[in-house]
Amino acid sequence: MAISGELIINLAALARNYNSLDAMSASSCETAAAVKANAYGLGVCEVVPALFRAGARTFFVATLDEAIAVRNVAPLANVCVFNGFVNRARDVYIEYNLIPVLNSLFEIELYRNFAVETGTPLPAIIHFDTGMNRLGVVSDDAKLLCEDMSLMDGIDLQLIISHFSSSEEMQNPLNSIQYERFKYIFPSFTGVKKSLCNSAGLFLSQDYHLDVVRPGIALYGGCVNSEMQSVISPVVSLNAPILQIHSVKKGETVGYNETHTFSSDGHVAVISVGYADGLLRSMFGGSLYWQGYELPICGRVSMDLLVCDLSNVPQGKYPDIGGMVEVIGENQSINDLAVSSGTIPYEIITSLGSRYNRSYIK
Amino acid sequence: MAISGELIINLAALARNYNSLDAMSASSCETAAAVKANAYGLGVCEVVPALFRAGARTFFVATLDEAIAVRNVAPLANVCVFNGFVNRARDVYIEYNLIPVLNSLFEIELYRNFAVETGTPLPAIIHFDTGMNRLGVVSDDAKLLCEDMSLMDGIDLQLIISHFSSSEEMQNPLNSIQYERFKYIFPSFTGVKKSLCNSAGLFLSQDYHLDVVRPGIALYGGCVNSEMQSVISPVVSLNAPILQIHSVKKGETVGYNETHTFSSDGHVAVISVGYADGLLRSMFGGSLYWQGYELPICGRVSMDLLVCDLSNVPQGKYPDIGGMVEVIGENQSINDLAVSSGTIPYEIITSLGSRYNRSYIK
Repeated sequence: MAISGELIINLAALARNYNSLDAMSASSCETAAAVKANAYGLGVCEVVPALFRAGARTFFVATLDEAIAVRNVAPLANVCVFNGFVNRARDVYIEYNLIPVLNSLFEIELYRNFAVETGTPLPAIIHFDTGMNRLGVVSDDAKLLCEDMSLMDGIDLQLIISHFSSSEEMQNPLNSIQYERFKYIFPSFTGVKKSLCNSAGLFLSQDYHLDVVRPGIALYGGCVNSEMQSVISPVVSLNAPILQIHSVKKGETVGYNETHTFSSDGHVAVISVGYADGLLRSMFGGSLYWQGYELPICGRVSMDLLVCDLSNVPQGKYPDIGGMVEVIGENQSINDLAVSSGTIPYEIITSLGSRYNRSYIK
Repeated sequence: MAISGELIINLAALARNYNSLDAMSASSCETAAAVKANAYGLGVCEVVPALFRAGARTFFVATLDEAIAVRNVAPLANVCVFNGFVNRARDVYIEYNLIPVLNSLFEIELYRNFAVETGTPLPAIIHFDTGMNRLGVVSDDAKLLCEDMSLMDGIDLQLIISHFSSSEEMQNPLNSIQYERFKYIFPSFTGVKKSLCNSAGLFLSQDYHLDVVRPGIALYGGCVNSEMQSVISPVVSLNAPILQIHSVKKGETVGYNETHTFSSDGHVAVISVGYADGLLRSMFGGSLYWQGYELPICGRVSMDLLVCDLSNVPQGKYPDIGGMVEVIGENQSINDLAVSSGTIPYEIITSLGSRYNRSYIK
């Protein structure tokens, strides 16, 4: 039915972003792609083949279910599972030819035992924590591992990785500290490929690129600093239909809990989009756009609706009922929307709901 | 795959809530159900049949797609579409036997013309705005309608409705003002059923119940004030698995942008749930629970992960890797989670993601 928001995902722009990011590192450095959370909400079934066509061969996901979904659309890709190895699902890794990212000595031991049982080396990535303090082999355990490489017997170690905590803050000293910590273990892993950079990491020192970079948000048009904005094209646009236009009077309030009072007579448009569609309720105070005119959101975002002030639109140029207003597009990037929602572009795109008509530009 | 969060939806509790809410009004008052946004995220295909079995016969949705989904699982129900009548989809209303909620004179005219063309009266609801200033016939247009009832010729008017903007604020004077405004037009609609109350409205004056009440959030266990808590049972519980437990040292930071620094040595659990699963990133500072012990979230919620401090758990009682921690359950209601995320329970449940294993208790 054509009476809902339209979410348009530009796969050509996605491929361009992949190529632009790939061009930033040396030709010896592979550009992998983070496609976890259903390709950041944009759809693994369309995004992964588009990235594969653009040249990507290695894909990172969070969960085993996601890995299976990627494998189903990319039979020849390397599919890597950030969330590690789970012993009771061991056969799934073999069946779908998946590469677990081992995050602890515990997981390394489980996987080594599995490899010994199968009698054949099994591929893996090991993740070392260097300051994120989330997943990853902690420093004391990294020392143990470096002192006794037999702990990895039977593991075909394809890559070691670490993860920046603040790479979008280009001046943050932790970036170089994390790099130095990571580098500290390199002598124990000669001949093994290394990876440290997410999207923003790519824009830091070339030294950090190492053998594999693995951008995510930048592929999808998300920019977390101005350096990225000069390289990255928007991928997502979102429009939502006007259900009703009506007059309001000075002094009247609008929406739940009367958080907005009109300071003059005017008109508002009621738009068919709300927080059940992934526009965060914290977007209170943001705007939508119509033909370049800013339409400030009046009052709270509700579940299925929001109300915009038409004061900035000249009377003769009012939109029609059924007209589509811009939520994300030329006038408002996912980064702008993130700022007005008090969050980051990652949360904006992973929250996009299921009521939209989704279309993909090839 | 069993290595993700578990979202459990208790349909028996849902039915109990329906019956409890139904018991609050006179037996002559019908209790309808708001099931928009995929039954507030919990799944129309399971929720609607459960409510139908509990006695509900009238269901309200936002969009036409949602109406079709409800019709497909409830062939005998009254299915009402809040977002109104769209002329270019006119045949869909007939094919699926849907009742549009007409929100303006413009929609009333379109629908009347449609009825005239079909040569048979068509069912509709008319929504009058009484202060929400969102959808609904505005007061000046309501006067026109009352003065010329022929504007509704051919429309089989089944119900007139309005909507509270602040019904959870029991002392808010706007509640009685909205009721009085709504009542003002009743003389023009003798013999037509009337509806004003959402969930919280049911807990205000019995006068407001009128002929039909239409709770939503309370059915799903959401309580927006203490009066509701005494009547409503939880419906949703959510658990998420521990991927890793590791030590941390005093002075170390954790997560993106180092927003949390450990004040002593300790241990943390890394949990497989994040904002891509609908835990809002604004949940910063909240907690999860393990066997009743509070596990404060350390640092930011990331896309697929969050990190909890285990300091409150006695050393011998640490959970195992793979153990499930409570996100929503006995220790933390959706209302609690809403408070710690700076939002309302509605946004919490409509945001619940698609990576969970969903199960329904009958």
